[in-house]
Amino acid sequence: MTQVKVGIIMGSQSDWPTMKHAADILDELGVAYESKIVSAHRTPDRLWTYGKTAAERGLQVIIAGAGGAAHLPGMVSSKTRVPVLGVPVQTKALSGVDSLYSIVQMPKGFPVGTMAIGPAGAANAGLMAAAILANSDAELAEKLEDWRAALSASIPEEPVDD
Amino acid sequence: MTQVKVGIIMGSQSDWPTMKHAADILDELGVAYESKIVSAHRTPDRLWTYGKTAAERGLQVIIAGAGGAAHLPGMVSSKTRVPVLGVPVQTKALSGVDSLYSIVQMPKGFPVGTMAIGPAGAANAGLMAAAILANSDAELAEKLEDWRAALSASIPEEPVDD
Amino acid sequence: MTQVKVGIIMGSQSDWPTMKHAADILDELGVAYESKIVSAHRTPDRLWTYGKTAAERGLQVIIAGAGGAAHLPGMVSSKTRVPVLGVPVQTKALSGVDSLYSIVQMPKGFPVGTMAIGPAGAANAGLMAAAILANSDAELAEKLEDWRAALSASIPEEPVDD
Amino acid sequence: MTQVKVGIIMGSQSDWPTMKHAADILDELGVAYESKIVSAHRTPDRLWTYGKTAAERGLQVIIAGAGGAAHLPGMVSSKTRVPVLGVPVQTKALSGVDSLYSIVQMPKGFPVGTMAIGPAGAANAGLMAAAILANSDAELAEKLEDWRAALSASIPEEPVDD
Amino acid sequence: MTQVKVGIIMGSQSDWPTMKHAADILDELGVAYESKIVSAHRTPDRLWTYGKTAAERGLQVIIAGAGGAAHLPGMVSSKTRVPVLGVPVQTKALSGVDSLYSIVQMPKGFPVGTMAIGPAGAANAGLMAAAILANSDAELAEKLEDWRAALSASIPEEPVDD
Amino acid sequence: MTQVKVGIIMGSQSDWPTMKHAADILDELGVAYESKIVSAHRTPDRLWTYGKTAAERGLQVIIAGAGGAAHLPGMVSSKTRVPVLGVPVQTKALSGVDSLYSIVQMPKGFPVGTMAIGPAGAANAGLMAAAILANSDAELAEKLEDWRAALSASIPEEPVDD
Amino acid sequence: MTQVKVGIIMGSQSDWPTMKHAADILDELGVAYESKIVSAHRTPDRLWTYGKTAAERGLQVIIAGAGGAAHLPGMVSSKTRVPVLGVPVQTKALSGVDSLYSIVQMPKGFPVGTMAIGPAGAANAGLMAAAILANSDAELAEKLEDWRAALSASIPEEPVDD
Amino acid sequence: MTQVKVGIIMGSQSDWPTMKHAADILDELGVAYESKIVSAHRTPDRLWTYGKTAAERGLQVIIAGAGGAAHLPGMVSSKTRVPVLGVPVQTKALSGVDSLYSIVQMPKGFPVGTMAIGPAGAANAGLMAAAILANSDAELAEKLEDWRAALSASIPEEPVDD
Repeated sequence: MTQVKVGIIMGSQSDWPTMKHAADILDELGVAYESKIVSAHRTPDRLWTYGKTAAERGLQVIIAGAGGAAHLPGMVSSKTRVPVLGVPVQTKALSGVDSLYSIVQMPKGFPVGTMAIGPAGAANAGLMAAAILANSDAELAEKLEDWRAALSASIPEEPVDD
Repeated sequence: MTQVKVGIIMGSQSDWPTMKHAADILDELGVAYESKIVSAHRTPDRLWTYGKTAAERGLQVIIAGAGGAAHLPGMVSSKTRVPVLGVPVQTKALSGVDSLYSIVQMPKGFPVGTMAIGPAGAANAGLMAAAILANSDAELAEKLEDWRAALSASIPEEPVDD
Repeated sequence: MTQVKVGIIMGSQSDWPTMKHAADILDELGVAYESKIVSAHRTPDRLWTYGKTAAERGLQVIIAGAGGAAHLPGMVSSKTRVPVLGVPVQTKALSGVDSLYSIVQMPKGFPVGTMAIGPAGAANAGLMAAAILANSDAELAEKLEDWRAALSASIPEEPVDD
Repeated sequence: MTQVKVGIIMGSQSDWPTMKHAADILDELGVAYESKIVSAHRTPDRLWTYGKTAAERGLQVIIAGAGGAAHLPGMVSSKTRVPVLGVPVQTKALSGVDSLYSIVQMPKGFPVGTMAIGPAGAANAGLMAAAILANSDAELAEKLEDWRAALSASIPEEPVDD
Repeated sequence: MTQVKVGIIMGSQSDWPTMKHAADILDELGVAYESKIVSAHRTPDRLWTYGKTAAERGLQVIIAGAGGAAHLPGMVSSKTRVPVLGVPVQTKALSGVDSLYSIVQMPKGFPVGTMAIGPAGAANAGLMAAAILANSDAELAEKLEDWRAALSASIPEEPVDD
Repeated sequence: MTQVKVGIIMGSQSDWPTMKHAADILDELGVAYESKIVSAHRTPDRLWTYGKTAAERGLQVIIAGAGGAAHLPGMVSSKTRVPVLGVPVQTKALSGVDSLYSIVQMPKGFPVGTMAIGPAGAANAGLMAAAILANSDAELAEKLEDWRAALSASIPEEPVDD
Repeated sequence: MTQVKVGIIMGSQSDWPTMKHAADILDELGVAYESKIVSAHRTPDRLWTYGKTAAERGLQVIIAGAGGAAHLPGMVSSKTRVPVLGVPVQTKALSGVDSLYSIVQMPKGFPVGTMAIGPAGAANAGLMAAAILANSDAELAEKLEDWRAALSASIPEEPVDD
Repeated sequence: MTQVKVGIIMGSQSDWPTMKHAADILDELGVAYESKIVSAHRTPDRLWTYGKTAAERGLQVIIAGAGGAAHLPGMVSSKTRVPVLGVPVQTKALSGVDSLYSIVQMPKGFPVGTMAIGPAGAANAGLMAAAILANSDAELAEKLEDWRAALSASIPEEPVDD
């Protein structure tokens, strides 16, 4: 069985349409992952356990998405040395600026590698997770290079009207 | 011995010059309190214990101050039903807007009664803690009314040049 | 008859779809409340009377919601020692940032425990009102603990596609 | 005795260094005024009386300055039909954006003619007060035209190094 | 024929749905006005003439609405001593914050009494124009008092579900 | 005598410490220019004349700097087809965000090529003016290429402690 | 064959509905241009080549549009002395403020003449490109003057209801 | 000789006081690194080479700091699959919000793990680089755990007056 090295966690089911973009990228690249709902506020003990066992369970990257007063990425970072990537989910009133500030402005000691607000950020979290794993996985490195080359090759030379 | 009903907690020693304004108000009003450093990120287990034991220890209000990705007020709110007041500490780059958004934008289920950024907010947290206790303490209610009346009475009729 | 201990006030009928979320929580928890339209600008005398009589009428928490130049929460706080919770209503042009700043940035002396912008904030105001009352109401404290436990229990382990 | 037609009010003594710029302009133009400290939160009854008697006392313009959750201009506008000009005082954390939003975003019914943040705004409030009075005071209109002409004439053709 | 004392000007036809709210108020109060399209950028000479002739034509208030880099209110203020009220029109990308800053942040010498972003601001500009005229028009003053009293009287005591 | 092809204008003497950076660049590149104080609000007629005569006087670029409600760049653009570059001067309360929005958010028809807030923006306005002239001045094009090459060559390989 | 002097480039096909407004203006004015997709991130080598060959290919203005972390305008400016105009494309979460800041805040050495967010900015980039070319093309200068005159003439005197 | 696996790059010497905090953390943890000035705009070819050779040179993490229109982190991410961490350097006018938006809002395909604005962000970039390397370096993993434990242990229980 493939060792799961990437954990995708999110504050609630409503974050899944955003966070699914991280999962999709990992699927494309053939990277095994797990996806869980771990709410910093509603299931703090689940968060605790998730953070404390992450390294021993073999996780090498945690992708955490949340919106508003988005404490999940930073709190999980406080519980594990496993690198944490944060995805600010877009919000209704403040468009995700609240999510972004809550995730990115971490104090010294507990890094969260923060991505763009919304789906593009989630996709990029998947790509960065793959890039981290690719440091010691030559096959994945090649897949990632191919994915990037294909993206570049897909860009037409000129814009066209609809 | 007086039962301590108000806990003042903050993310680091550097928050004390702000949070001391809460303590000063409680001193003026004769309300017993404790003040602790409880860092959401650096001492998460301390936060856990603090939250879990707050109600049984007899706390009736928790005043929590933090800056930047300020997770302390919201995380303690997730661990206890005791009312939590949040004080956004002013920050260097973002002037406390990051603190404010991280504290106030809590999801449904876990309220944090957020105060103004900085010392005025901390003082007001002290006053609101007193107001909450005054609901079932007539003597404190009177002291609070007196404090408010004295503040009003202190306002001169006309501005003066320095 | 149950003593009404929580007053929900709002600047206009148009705030009700937001503020109703506070009322709904209080209904769920069996807390008696009143809901009134009290406009700081259009009915200042109503505001005056509301503030001045709040304590003697037995109110222990006031939840005040308003949008834009949202003066209601702060002005009622200036008229009563009863703790005031503020709910910034989302606005069309500025998405409630104007409401938030107008409510939260109170000067020393007149605290407003400010909640998140919009419905989540209103629901949380209801929860915090209950938490304040629960300080001296063991039965309500238990109900609140149950409500919180049920919320936590409702969170599924994994996200699902629609 | 000259009828005082302009009232300058402010939330606290600390606003005077800003609001004095309004007074200075009125002095330059020979317009009689009064300057008072009227705090929306600390002296609400003073505000009430000020607003209610403004018209009958012959005031034709009220200049109101305040900072943070700046409720003074809007609340006095709710109590009198006399035109109110608002001056957002610069604040420490939010640089007066809080003051500006709290003053300018008034709901339909209660206008506040809002000026720039800080001293320039206060000076302009003095000028606009004069302009309003000049509508029915030809001598003042001429003085104002002269003041404006002198300002224009004072601008050199070319910038110079210090 | 009634002397027109209020001029409503706007940068383009697209501002009219906003600015019409000023006209509607003046209609309700029986105040004569003119409404013109005067674009600071597209018809600068029209702006010049409008400003230069405003006082001699008997205008006593100019209401100017514009969006984006909204230069109309400030530029007309630079051309006439007649009091200018500015209405920031809501914009697509920046929601009218650009309009607001462009209008309110005027340098010393050229006041613009700025209103809220959008229709409420336009309506309030109409009310403030009336308030300025009411300084020397007792009948209008009474009408304005009645309008305000009717607004207050229209507020129901309690919110209702739809 | 060298034909002056670049005009540097600014709202007031206080803008010169910023705008001097544009002049310095032009001096370095040997481009003749004039520098004038032209205040949109205080000297509107000067602005009018400046704009109307710019093309016939042989100007090929106008660099306009202003702060706050910064109307100068946009207004001069409305008066001439000569390309206008705008420099937002940093302000005290809003740090130049007001200047930036007032300059950059121009409506269709009247472009202002807006630079960064402050001295870097002014220097870049000088460079862009030179680049525009270099389109038909091979010698200047070479000088500009050299200036750019020298800037690149000045960058050390590694950072050093002070 | 007409020498193409204006290059319109954009980060992706999705920017075309915005950037087409630049092309439309150039069509109206009879200015030859090319339009290309050049992604700073996905096709960096294309960007490199575009920048390096721009001057020798005879381009005199480059119009570059991009959204989010919009690096295209600044990066092409670093590769060529040809004047670059930047168009911030409106984005979903941050409405184009991210695009604006990423484009306008360039360091000394590499100017980007930044336009308004969205279609108006793109149209203005077309107009400014024409204005730059018009410096040495009398016929185009006249066309541009005519275009501007027609725009001014199209403005009605009074607003009308729909 | 130790293989250098971490590259710290920055836009200019002036970024070093910020970026040095990343280097200091790597020194504390015994992680070999190189530090280079690589300006996206002033030395684009250096950036090109740096990105293109990063993987083959054995780099496993790149830490890139820049301010204002901060294109360095995103552009290097476009040139290499090696994971890039971005540090927004605080700026004078916009306090680093411009840097933050320019770095974090990357489009799908090119992730930048963005840290907090300023020195705390740089230190955290160092910690996250170590965490990434620790995935396949048990000794470093232990050092990192120790560093984290020491940080937690350093927090006193109670705040003290100065």
